[in-house]
Amino acid sequence: MAKKLILDLDTGIDDALAIAYALGSPELELIGITSTYGNVLLEQGIRNDLALLDLLGHSEVPVYPGESHALRKQKFEVQPISAFIHGQNGIGEVEIPSSTREPEKMSAVDFIIEASHTYGENLIVVPTGPETNLATAIAKAPEIINEIGKVVLMGGALTVCGNVSPWAEANISQDPDAANYVFRSGICSTMVGLDVTLQTLLTSKETAIWRDYATPAAVAFADMTDYYIRAYETTAPKLHGCGLHDPLAVGVAADPTLVRTLPINMQVDVEGATRGRTIGRNEKLNDPIKTSHVAVQVEVARFLEEFMSRIGSVLQ
Amino acid sequence: MAKKLILDLDTGIDDALAIAYALGSPELELIGITSTYGNVLLEQGIRNDLALLDLLGHSEVPVYPGESHALRKQKFEVQPISAFIHGQNGIGEVEIPSSTREPEKMSAVDFIIEASHTYGENLIVVPTGPETNLATAIAKAPEIINEIGKVVLMGGALTVCGNVSPWAEANISQDPDAANYVFRSGICSTMVGLDVTLQTLLTSKETAIWRDYATPAAVAFADMTDYYIRAYETTAPKLHGCGLHDPLAVGVAADPTLVRTLPINMQVDVEGATRGRTIGRNEKLNDPIKTSHVAVQVEVARFLEEFMSRIGSVLQ
Repeated sequence: MAKKLILDLDTGIDDALAIAYALGSPELELIGITSTYGNVLLEQGIRNDLALLDLLGHSEVPVYPGESHALRKQKFEVQPISAFIHGQNGIGEVEIPSSTREPEKMSAVDFIIEASHTYGENLIVVPTGPETNLATAIAKAPEIINEIGKVVLMGGALTVCGNVSPWAEANISQDPDAANYVFRSGICSTMVGLDVTLQTLLTSKETAIWRDYATPAAVAFADMTDYYIRAYETTAPKLHGCGLHDPLAVGVAADPTLVRTLPINMQVDVEGATRGRTIGRNEKLNDPIKTSHVAVQVEVARFLEEFMSRIGSVLQ
Repeated sequence: MAKKLILDLDTGIDDALAIAYALGSPELELIGITSTYGNVLLEQGIRNDLALLDLLGHSEVPVYPGESHALRKQKFEVQPISAFIHGQNGIGEVEIPSSTREPEKMSAVDFIIEASHTYGENLIVVPTGPETNLATAIAKAPEIINEIGKVVLMGGALTVCGNVSPWAEANISQDPDAANYVFRSGICSTMVGLDVTLQTLLTSKETAIWRDYATPAAVAFADMTDYYIRAYETTAPKLHGCGLHDPLAVGVAADPTLVRTLPINMQVDVEGATRGRTIGRNEKLNDPIKTSHVAVQVEVARFLEEFMSRIGSVLQ
């Protein structure tokens, strides 16, 4: 039976790829998208989620409005680097029709709690932006810690340098307190960070395959991903492609064997010079119970095959 | 055939344990100790090495004087925390007779180079302090990068916090430039850092076994290790024992299967807020050639058995 999946997104080009990957994965049933801020403002993220679901022929998936800023902040503004990488509209300035649908009345936080109560261990939550929604849900209903089957989060950097500073990755950096709260809550989590996502690269060779499909969805996804690849050529010219950050988290939710993980009870530094760093909790080093697992190696070729075949099935 | 071993020490209580472990390991032939600064001044380290070798009945092992301070510094002073952990004399204020031997005339740097030329891939170098000697040897004779079989270093912290700052481990912190130079040289290395050494704990239950042997060496080792354990009760009360930092590096040199390693091309941050941090080189993440391996898991029970049986054979 397929696992119930909530995607918690700040959509974003690679978030769009994550939606397509989820819809193309038979192991996962996408029961809702919870929107958040990060790559874009909350409102833009909701707009993109609804429009992308229409484009992909899945208007039945509900979209829930989430938190609009970090726990300790009063507001959020998109950082220039985010706009550079994802475009002002979050999807590489590609024009896709706005949906006529509205987001749900229920909040993202309440939907996560309700789904946890309903589906328990059959529920997987995949946050690919700041973890503010999930942290708020845990604070409001701590029992979900022991209900939710698994959290597979895109964020952090354990064995490599960060991408917004030498020690901090972008998603965690948006709300270090929320991510730290989620790790320390003891909820079962798998961290899919830069350690592995910078190994799974997509190039314009792959997007050309989509463009040949010639469907509106395939062309739009090819165009937005090419925008993303061009941004990477500027920000990370040595990589020779774009990192498949958010889709890899969905890939691991569908098939955990894609990565090799280390069992480590994690924290996020919230004080001092290294605020935003993901690192093991020394005081839990010899605790036999490990609630978080960190992906440190990935089967690159197998993931890319899965990525192309699953996204291809949705775009054609 | 036993591998030729050079111990590069800043002796130090756990360095003393590393000497005993090496002498009790049939896979290793200790061909020399190269002394350095760190836990103690260079002169004190040389004194301790010679005295300990006499005490353990191995006065045939030569001791070579090494660098007395970090690459970018002009002098070195013992830090108060080092004196607290290891005692003013480096061996827990335990009185053992000074040797009548003198250190060798040849420098530590030249001995490392000569041994590399002589033994090549049969040589293992185990630095358990700052890596200034090894860095200086590589700078003087870069060909040793491709000669020396392996460097197994005690130092660093990849998946856990440091012990002199949230990001820096003590040995690396003494000379971040030297450690960075060694990692980036491409010499084949295994990093045995706090990730694993804080898992391998010794308690006064074990030292009581040595004390019962009643030999001068066993009583001296029991006394100095108890001093070390008492210091740990103050500096790390949650650990309930002392970390077997330096002996574990020797253990891994003798039997690499004691740890599970990740292949990562490492660096040390030498600029910015996190100077002294050990971390993967992002620009080498997708390079199939990995010259460093980082120990991230350890077979604790098996190592402690080896530790007690090997050291026991030397102390009795």
